[in-house]
Amino acid sequence: MTKGKDTKETILISALSIVSQSGLEGLSIGKLAQTVGLSKSGLFAHFNSLENLQLAVLQKAVDIFIETVIVPALKQPRGEPRICAISKNLFEWDRKFSGGCPFFSISAELDDKPGVVRDFLVSTQKDFVSTIANMAQIAITEGHFRKDLNPQQFAYDFYAIVLCHHHFDRLLNDPLAQNYYLNAFKALIKNSH
Amino acid sequence: MTKGKDTKETILISALSIVSQSGLEGLSIGKLAQTVGLSKSGLFAHFNSLENLQLAVLQKAVDIFIETVIVPALKQPRGEPRICAISKNLFEWDRKFSGGCPFFSISAELDDKPGVVRDFLVSTQKDFVSTIANMAQIAITEGHFRKDLNPQQFAYDFYAIVLCHHHFDRLLNDPLAQNYYLNAFKALIKNSH
Repeated sequence: MTKGKDTKETILISALSIVSQSGLEGLSIGKLAQTVGLSKSGLFAHFNSLENLQLAVLQKAVDIFIETVIVPALKQPRGEPRICAISKNLFEWDRKFSGGCPFFSISAELDDKPGVVRDFLVSTQKDFVSTIANMAQIAITEGHFRKDLNPQQFAYDFYAIVLCHHHFDRLLNDPLAQNYYLNAFKALIKNSH
Repeated sequence: MTKGKDTKETILISALSIVSQSGLEGLSIGKLAQTVGLSKSGLFAHFNSLENLQLAVLQKAVDIFIETVIVPALKQPRGEPRICAISKNLFEWDRKFSGGCPFFSISAELDDKPGVVRDFLVSTQKDFVSTIANMAQIAITEGHFRKDLNPQQFAYDFYAIVLCHHHFDRLLNDPLAQNYYLNAFKALIKNSH
């Protein structure tokens, strides 16, 4: 049972690396079986369908995201310090995958493809946006942020800065991507006071 | 000759609509031939290779972008008015395609795929970022923006807001996407004064 769990873990980590680089399009049961050294039928036995594999990969990404980005931030005081911790932890997250954030890697691929995988992806992104908006609301209550700040707008602005870093870093290969990100985040916090 | 040019135009517009929805992955010579009612060999004669077709589609997107977003903005006074016009025209641009901005639709697909198509895409995005940075520099010179504003940082912040609108609108289907975009842009201009 433990061995089966370990095998599944190994498969999912490999799959996540493929998805980060080539999107869900690059993830076939055949290619993945070859990468992890299993037969196609052996791999199929773990997931039963490509769709189940895709969902399991996304769930794995969520688990790692929570562990890397959210949990350490919750050790900080409520409000602004938690938001700043999340902003910092997102770099750790991005560095974990050869192709950067796997959620961003598949967003454009799925945005016009209705189905359970798209629904799952959307729910992860809505959860993240809500988490940031809730933290901004708490930062208002705690007196860190100004009372007339719109927490949903703050979440949009935060998400914009993170997403743009992915583009400047992964697509444009701009060596100043991290600088721009940090400056933009600093300005967002300043304007929220 | 004119007929050949018209046919090519029709092919490229159809191809662009496919790319906007399904990315370059969704663009095959066979599928496109079917959509425009040509034989595969007839279509192939126009472009000679899938790569040439992809490049021609991107060039067509650039032409439409310049015509829809940049040229009307250049009729406004230099500096801030031009930047505001571009921000407005980007909605026209986005509405032209069933899957939204085709450049954003293929960014994640290409970011880990080296080659001439990726190079072309990157050059279009760098051109856009430079255009915004130059306009911000002019807005400083004209006295619209403050002297210590970093025009490159402004371009990052602007790009972030545009990109995030694509995600909130296309992926999250958030009905407030446009509101968030307009508020974020207003705040960016205010903080640049």
